[in-house]
Amino acid sequence: MSRLKELIKAARGEEPADLVLKGGRVVNVFSGEIERLDVAVKDGLIAGLGRYDGREEISLGGKFLSPGLIEPHLHIESSLLCPAQLAEVVVPRGTTTIIADPHEIANVLGLDGIRFMLKASEGLPMDIFYMAPSCVPASRLETAGAELTAEDLMTLLDEPRILGLAEMMNFPGVINHEPPVLAKLEVFSARPIDGHAPLLSGNDLNAYISAGISTDHECTVLSEAREKLARGMRVLIREGSTARNMAELLPLVTENNFRRIGFCSDDRHANDLIEEGHLDWILRKSVNLGLDPVRALIMASHNAAEAYSLPKTGAIAPGYHADMVILDSLETFSVDRVYKAGRLVSRDGQLINPIPALSIPDSMSPMNTGPLDLQSLEVKITATKARAIELIEGQILTGKLIVETPGKDGFLRADTKRDLARLVVVERHKATGNIGQALVKGFGLQKGALASSIAHDSHNIISVGISSGEILTAIKAVEEMHGGLAVAVENQILACLPLPVAGLMSPAPAREVAADYRKLETMVRETGCALENPFMALSFLALPVIPSLKLTDKGLVDVDAFDFVDLFVN
Amino acid sequence: MSRLKELIKAARGEEPADLVLKGGRVVNVFSGEIERLDVAVKDGLIAGLGRYDGREEISLGGKFLSPGLIEPHLHIESSLLCPAQLAEVVVPRGTTTIIADPHEIANVLGLDGIRFMLKASEGLPMDIFYMAPSCVPASRLETAGAELTAEDLMTLLDEPRILGLAEMMNFPGVINHEPPVLAKLEVFSARPIDGHAPLLSGNDLNAYISAGISTDHECTVLSEAREKLARGMRVLIREGSTARNMAELLPLVTENNFRRIGFCSDDRHANDLIEEGHLDWILRKSVNLGLDPVRALIMASHNAAEAYSLPKTGAIAPGYHADMVILDSLETFSVDRVYKAGRLVSRDGQLINPIPALSIPDSMSPMNTGPLDLQSLEVKITATKARAIELIEGQILTGKLIVETPGKDGFLRADTKRDLARLVVVERHKATGNIGQALVKGFGLQKGALASSIAHDSHNIISVGISSGEILTAIKAVEEMHGGLAVAVENQILACLPLPVAGLMSPAPAREVAADYRKLETMVRETGCALENPFMALSFLALPVIPSLKLTDKGLVDVDAFDFVDLFVN
Repeated sequence: MSRLKELIKAARGEEPADLVLKGGRVVNVFSGEIERLDVAVKDGLIAGLGRYDGREEISLGGKFLSPGLIEPHLHIESSLLCPAQLAEVVVPRGTTTIIADPHEIANVLGLDGIRFMLKASEGLPMDIFYMAPSCVPASRLETAGAELTAEDLMTLLDEPRILGLAEMMNFPGVINHEPPVLAKLEVFSARPIDGHAPLLSGNDLNAYISAGISTDHECTVLSEAREKLARGMRVLIREGSTARNMAELLPLVTENNFRRIGFCSDDRHANDLIEEGHLDWILRKSVNLGLDPVRALIMASHNAAEAYSLPKTGAIAPGYHADMVILDSLETFSVDRVYKAGRLVSRDGQLINPIPALSIPDSMSPMNTGPLDLQSLEVKITATKARAIELIEGQILTGKLIVETPGKDGFLRADTKRDLARLVVVERHKATGNIGQALVKGFGLQKGALASSIAHDSHNIISVGISSGEILTAIKAVEEMHGGLAVAVENQILACLPLPVAGLMSPAPAREVAADYRKLETMVRETGCALENPFMALSFLALPVIPSLKLTDKGLVDVDAFDFVDLFVN
Repeated sequence: MSRLKELIKAARGEEPADLVLKGGRVVNVFSGEIERLDVAVKDGLIAGLGRYDGREEISLGGKFLSPGLIEPHLHIESSLLCPAQLAEVVVPRGTTTIIADPHEIANVLGLDGIRFMLKASEGLPMDIFYMAPSCVPASRLETAGAELTAEDLMTLLDEPRILGLAEMMNFPGVINHEPPVLAKLEVFSARPIDGHAPLLSGNDLNAYISAGISTDHECTVLSEAREKLARGMRVLIREGSTARNMAELLPLVTENNFRRIGFCSDDRHANDLIEEGHLDWILRKSVNLGLDPVRALIMASHNAAEAYSLPKTGAIAPGYHADMVILDSLETFSVDRVYKAGRLVSRDGQLINPIPALSIPDSMSPMNTGPLDLQSLEVKITATKARAIELIEGQILTGKLIVETPGKDGFLRADTKRDLARLVVVERHKATGNIGQALVKGFGLQKGALASSIAHDSHNIISVGISSGEILTAIKAVEEMHGGLAVAVENQILACLPLPVAGLMSPAPAREVAADYRKLETMVRETGCALENPFMALSFLALPVIPSLKLTDKGLVDVDAFDFVDLFVN
């Protein structure tokens, strides 16, 4: 009550505001116009726009003042950073709110992982909200570290920072009305529910949407986005580190529908965040592609707040949270200063106050593989033809190939001439000893092996390599780090990056992680691999909900049939 | 769960839908486009759009299919009809949802009145939601039948059809941060709160909005609407029986802001609803004034649902309530059929099923005036100049005049030559005996008197007339009917309309009420009054929250000063 009274007094000008930003060009998300007005802040909220006096007054000298940018769908884990270290990178880029899906850590640690993410994002100079992961494990075709049932998810309903249900990747489960899937949808029926249904169309799409699924960020084709939007989904145009859909999807935006469209990153690496940016980079790209800059800002702030029913967020208007970004221009979108809840949190690309370190409990660093030796990595050839996963650079979809089985002495071997490498997934949660085996084309590997404890979505250890020995060396390195990334040639580890938080994240500062990651990528070149994002590409090869051919610890999966398929074509 | 499963099955086409509307041109509120698709309905919900088979199939032959129209702000009482009888009129006009403010009955009967309205709107072929009246009584300057405190309003929070807080007319109370007013705002802080602040601007407007007030329907000037929209209010363009702002405000609508704008009726008479229409009439007018018809339909359906967070309402999309209107054209907006929750409820302007009568308890018909005779209506003149209310036709604002006091033998008298009539307000709730006295210019009365128990917002008995005797005759007629409208000349009642529900509404069918009302208006012509809506004009003369000069049972009110002022200028 007293806060409201003080706000009204400041708004009316009865008392000076805490802070007045003067002389800015204020982006108005409601009218789509730019106004030259003072903005008065009181107790973390916008009091008013007009002419004001404040205890503190800042002159913006004609710079642009925009609502803080809002990321509506991000997997923090994909940055390799913990929430605080991510904040250090993205807040100076103008991001004041993230809606994250802690799906990755939930696959490793279940509810404990989600509660760790909640805890690890307290007291930051930004708001981090979460959606409750809907698909842990992502499928019955893999071994995850945890399972989240509808009852488990129900325990999250009272968490004020849990907004809704995260991307419902199990679209076959929805449209085939599987009871455990519908039970999860029912738990969140009054909340936002994110969709994830690549290329779903027609009556199947109707069925999926009728279940209450309200957003989609998986469109890759313009006609797909048009259909999903027309059927009522809010479309989030994704532009991340690997999946980049903006160029294809931007023509979707019209004067009639732009308030139903947003932007998201989905998965974005620390390096890219540091070097290119976050939503500021997305804004820059979209405007370069011809989008009106004010419309772009509305899409990157207000529309996201609206899609997730964030109260009083995403606008510079009386009563709204004073989350604001000062931009030098609406072309470069270079960020001068960032205010969160009325407090200056970043200037010239640097946080004002360092974020205190969070201690990571040991329970967040499990590593539980079964016995693993050279012998266990060998595969006996049973047919002259074999299936191979075809990597498509820049996409998380893969192709299905059938190839002459590469081998020697009756055992499966890589064939560098045909760019066929071995792919191995080793279960790491329950010591089942499961090892999935496949072939993959497209890495360009001539020698060595890469291994990673990031392997969507169960995050077992995945390795691509030439020889069983190199694969073993890389996997053992990952195991010893309690998770991480490694590149090996022969019996040498050329580089590695420990990710001891669930095998997914590093507690180190972003620049350190990024430097280690760059070194890792440089060392990957030693293997002959020339992919832009080799570890990200590798990590998606175990994701059995994205077509067409994937590998889990349980075996090779034909995603179109949503079932296992033999490595060999008999 | 089973409902969701059946919906998904119908959406997917696994089982036939309950109903399929084929061959229509479907208005898409998300894309702003028109699509030729079948619409499948299951169990009251839209299952899908595409190609479908149904147990029942209806061919639309190219007619337009729009979401049901949604009225975001209406005082049902102003129609003079009870909710069911109102539904009989507006459902065939395409209205499937009303968000009503039961402010009038609350001023007479408090929470009992609101609960009566909830009860009286159960089981109708439309949804009626309510906002909790925020200003009962409207001011301390009048005697109402009830008072609603923040604690009283809190008892309404659990009612599923109470959406938020109704129009906060006490804008001085808000911007002067009066504790009882802020307490009400706090109770509804997480819900929509309607505004009501005519011409409020600048920092005062900021203060008002900062308190959480989210809509405005009181704009009369384009610049006012632009400012309110830019500061974050959703603007409802009002076009009612008396207050008509569309022509002035329609230029507000742009491609950038149209989703922040809606239409409302506020106050609309039974006659006008029957003869002209409801939102269909508003649509027709707006398109005649140049608005794009699809945009107009979005504003009259989806935007209203969004402003009041009505779940899954206001669109023809999977999972949405199957509230739909079949329109012959997007020029005439003439309504062919209306579906509510997938059920055909109206065809060719007639409800399919008659609505059963609701018995009105006696407690809904109080009448408690103090002693009243000729003597008590006389006013002794104390100055040669007097204040007079200037009626402005078509507006609820009034002007302030100072005139030579008209009188005879030292007593106030009407002066027909100067068009100065007497205006009297008699308290009717608590038998206080309060009688307010004033002069009014603009009725054109040559003889006789009009009286009404509708007198915003306290709904005491208001009468305009020439002689004390005629005024008394008219008021006594209203009293005997337990509320209603009457016109008298000399000691004869020329016509009357009983409104025994709180003195505001008739339980009779709309056409009966409208016929009686027309007769009443015809008889008013006998008095010389040529106003288009004499009783509506009369009813707003007691509303002390709309500038500039008004009369309550406690006396003459200078609204700009928000205080009493003497009738005579000493």
